Amino acid sequence: MIVNAHTQRVDEGIDVADDACVIGVDYGTLSGRALVVRVSDGAELGSAVQPYRHAVMERTLPASGAPLPPDWALQDPDDYRDVLRTAVPAALAAAGVKPEQVVGIGVDFTACTVLPTLADGTPLCELTPYRNRPHAYVKLWKHHAAQPQADRINALAHERGEKWIGRYGGKISSEWEYAKGLQLLEEDAELYHRAERWIEATDWITWQLTGEESRNACTAGYKGILQDGERPGAEYLAALNPDFAGFTAKLEFPVSALGDRAGSLCEAAAGWTGLPAGIAVCVGNVDAHVTGPAVQGVEPGQMVAIMGTSTCHIVNGGPSDEGAGPADVAGMCGVVDGGIIAGLWGYEAGQSGVGDIFAWFVERYSSPALVAEAAERGVSLHELLTEQAADHEVGAHGLVALDWHSGNRSVLVDHSLSGVIVGLTLGTAPHEIYRALLESTAFGTRVIVEALEAGGVPVTEFIAAGGLIKNSFLMQMYADVLRRPVSLAGSAQGPALGAAIHAAVAAGAYPDVVSAGAAMGSRVASAYLPDEGRAKAYDALFAEYLTLHDYFGRGGNDVLRRLHEIKTGAH
Amino acid sequence: MIVNAHTQRVDEGIDVADDACVIGVDYGTLSGRALVVRVSDGAELGSAVQPYRHAVMERTLPASGAPLPPDWALQDPDDYRDVLRTAVPAALAAAGVKPEQVVGIGVDFTACTVLPTLADGTPLCELTPYRNRPHAYVKLWKHHAAQPQADRINALAHERGEKWIGRYGGKISSEWEYAKGLQLLEEDAELYHRAERWIEATDWITWQLTGEESRNACTAGYKGILQDGERPGAEYLAALNPDFAGFTAKLEFPVSALGDRAGSLCEAAAGWTGLPAGIAVCVGNVDAHVTGPAVQGVEPGQMVAIMGTSTCHIVNGGPSDEGAGPADVAGMCGVVDGGIIAGLWGYEAGQSGVGDIFAWFVERYSSPALVAEAAERGVSLHELLTEQAADHEVGAHGLVALDWHSGNRSVLVDHSLSGVIVGLTLGTAPHEIYRALLESTAFGTRVIVEALEAGGVPVTEFIAAGGLIKNSFLMQMYADVLRRPVSLAGSAQGPALGAAIHAAVAAGAYPDVVSAGAAMGSRVASAYLPDEGRAKAYDALFAEYLTLHDYFGRGGNDVLRRLHEIKTGAH
Repeated sequence: MIVNAHTQRVDEGIDVADDACVIGVDYGTLSGRALVVRVSDGAELGSAVQPYRHAVMERTLPASGAPLPPDWALQDPDDYRDVLRTAVPAALAAAGVKPEQVVGIGVDFTACTVLPTLADGTPLCELTPYRNRPHAYVKLWKHHAAQPQADRINALAHERGEKWIGRYGGKISSEWEYAKGLQLLEEDAELYHRAERWIEATDWITWQLTGEESRNACTAGYKGILQDGERPGAEYLAALNPDFAGFTAKLEFPVSALGDRAGSLCEAAAGWTGLPAGIAVCVGNVDAHVTGPAVQGVEPGQMVAIMGTSTCHIVNGGPSDEGAGPADVAGMCGVVDGGIIAGLWGYEAGQSGVGDIFAWFVERYSSPALVAEAAERGVSLHELLTEQAADHEVGAHGLVALDWHSGNRSVLVDHSLSGVIVGLTLGTAPHEIYRALLESTAFGTRVIVEALEAGGVPVTEFIAAGGLIKNSFLMQMYADVLRRPVSLAGSAQGPALGAAIHAAVAAGAYPDVVSAGAAMGSRVASAYLPDEGRAKAYDALFAEYLTLHDYFGRGGNDVLRRLHEIKTGAH
Repeated sequence: MIVNAHTQRVDEGIDVADDACVIGVDYGTLSGRALVVRVSDGAELGSAVQPYRHAVMERTLPASGAPLPPDWALQDPDDYRDVLRTAVPAALAAAGVKPEQVVGIGVDFTACTVLPTLADGTPLCELTPYRNRPHAYVKLWKHHAAQPQADRINALAHERGEKWIGRYGGKISSEWEYAKGLQLLEEDAELYHRAERWIEATDWITWQLTGEESRNACTAGYKGILQDGERPGAEYLAALNPDFAGFTAKLEFPVSALGDRAGSLCEAAAGWTGLPAGIAVCVGNVDAHVTGPAVQGVEPGQMVAIMGTSTCHIVNGGPSDEGAGPADVAGMCGVVDGGIIAGLWGYEAGQSGVGDIFAWFVERYSSPALVAEAAERGVSLHELLTEQAADHEVGAHGLVALDWHSGNRSVLVDHSLSGVIVGLTLGTAPHEIYRALLESTAFGTRVIVEALEAGGVPVTEFIAAGGLIKNSFLMQMYADVLRRPVSLAGSAQGPALGAAIHAAVAAGAYPDVVSAGAAMGSRVASAYLPDEGRAKAYDALFAEYLTLHDYFGRGGNDVLRRLHEIKTGAH
């Protein structure tokens, strides 16, 4: 069923000119994209992409040539400014929009992507003495070298009965601010002490835009352990490491609701972007969360899944302003008051490998015959394998896989886990493994959905966004496996559109993010409906997945963790 | 350490001419090979191979074009005669040996490879009315469609406490005579009743050579459930199926010891082969078992492993003529009095997929870049992946695999099992999976060796034969994993040489098979010795293998069996 997205829009009074535009800047893992959007109806008028010059620094630090340890992932913050300097003017030009039409700008970012700065926002890596120090740079979300610190953070939190740990499914990720901060302290104490701020890149780039410091409710809650107005106490932090007692001071700053105005575009940023100084700048936000209003997926029960190399899931629960706490859902990334929409408990979950897993298989394990066939037919390997896989009944491959090739973010929160495949025979063909990998990610999503529902957070609709929605076989599979309608994002640029929607709110064009999303966002509702026959067949495979999930993930057999230890020791 | 094989030979009196030769004919899965061997010292003078015209019939029956069900594998017995007609004369020519120099001929065969015939040896498939009937043909060893019958055979044997079941590790394979015979009855009763014989191909082709019926102790014991002179009783058989009560009558015939003379070459066979009528023809034998004397591996404690697409293990235990029964070893294919060497309890075990698994991975999952690199360097993909894999420490890949892609023959005896791989990450490279697959087969062998030793059958030396011994990295791995010296077959044609050795005994050139093997066989003793450091590292991976082996194979989680059921139902 295809519903014209425009019929679902809600008209709201607008106090800006009819041709007013806003700009959303989406900071991804390898590049930043600027999107020019019309305020009145969300029309996307033009966009431009700027790849990061230093991309992701994983093997060596270019400034020194020194090798980086395993599991590191750094970025250079000046690459983020480059996006403002190049992609924003290019997007304006592409859109044929005059700078004076633009009434606001907002960003979204990967998270937790975090950096150490001075009190004036200067990144430590931009200070000459620290150019060669890896810990002076941005730690990208997928920097996974703080697992030992995360393990201690979690063990101590449970030992002391810290109440905030329950808001994070019982586990703080090694990707987040406290784990990465503790690693900084323990591996480069000088830089730790020099860092007056430990700030999310989304807040930092917003600071660059306004010249004024700000913090957003989303990253403060999900990544910075801000719950009910408090963060982990000094006594707890000192027990982790006496020098860590004062860590929170590097994070503290008044937190703004999403869609709030962070300030006005400063002269420097006006110079970079070509936009008029003084226009509204929205507080920072995160790529996944900002997508909610862009796909009209902010009502309680609507799960939005941003499906690309990994998948991030967000869903709103009940109101947070009625005195009730959040539901207790095991294994979530987090639940945050106003983490998605002000006034609602926002739940976040994730799968750390999805499209990445498909790409790993296709790029490394496709035979010359397969590659030749795809080339001859002018289709991608993904398309060819999907077509071959789609031609069979559910379960005909005899396979079940666990989708942990990049670890497990939800609901197990363990990056030392790894992928599993069972049921291989001498007849097992590439498209069969490919399909089992697709299915494993659908099953991983179902585990998350069922955890939410078991915790009292209903999930009634699954709205998919991101690059993978192009694969209709995959989308139908998700509908069948989840036994829920799958809707599709109306825009291919969900995050950038979401950032623009927040900018429109910051500019005063809409009273709040929900009404702005209703007017500017869009989705194809219930594009895929579950098929009962296939759903039933998938149930049988999902039952097998679940048994293996718990066996390998919940202590039945810790072989994956031990193999990770052997591997780390053996390299 | 390389020992000159010739220094280990024992001279024996020979009552044939110095230039006397024998011919061994090795019937494999896809072709037959004739080898001309000098009686005095085992020198291999010439050989020739004849592929079977109908190869393995798995998808359709060419005579009718009708499709065959899954898991079927048939052959045409006339293809076996073709080997006598073409390969034997070609081998003689290649050897430059005159027919009158040849004093004997013997065969070895895959097993259990079995066919229905009339009382005069005529295969039912050679009767015009039955040309289009699949059940009239030879059922090749890897015909796996009789699993339901095997399951009932086993369940009933345990229910009734049949004493013979213990001699087969508690399980009769779906590959063997009784399971395949019961399938014949239940799927084509007319042919079952028409079949006056249900005979192993090794005995059938020997019958073609001599014109006289004979049976050998090896297949009668391992595949035909002949134990202590008896077979399963009529009451038991009737309980399986009332019409099956008289099945044993189709098998019964006096059994000869291995190396016995079955008869003399008949005129018809003399015409096919060009050999003199009247020369000695040895009783039939099996490819694996016949290899024992060819590699001087017939002393108790010497395990001989024929490593090719699959691996068959044979090892002699204690004497069978001292009134003691065999040791009780769980999960063996069988233990048979004189099954390898007259007077000793012969144990057989097997791994149903070994080289087949490596080939599956290499042929289906090698990228164009890998294929190009191998081509450029003039090496095979197996060589390239082995070289890359060998470059890393034990456990550096973080993987453990279960080698059940073609089911598990020992010690689980279950062809509905399938392969597993755990520990996959986005960084997992092809050579790492390849190595994990190599290792999985070494671990599978260790399970068999440990089961034998736990049952009281020592294994002190591992003698490898077959195509895989060319891979020295694999051989060293087996030494390390097994913590035992690995010796190598001196001949690349172990089975054909073994058949020739038995023929020499049948011709009276040697008093027994052991002395003939001492003179004509050879091995490179202790070619690989275990390295303590690696052995210890492999121990840790083997412990993980064993846990997974028992979890997936012994009822911890029957997911593999359920996936097989779903797959079979879904196709």
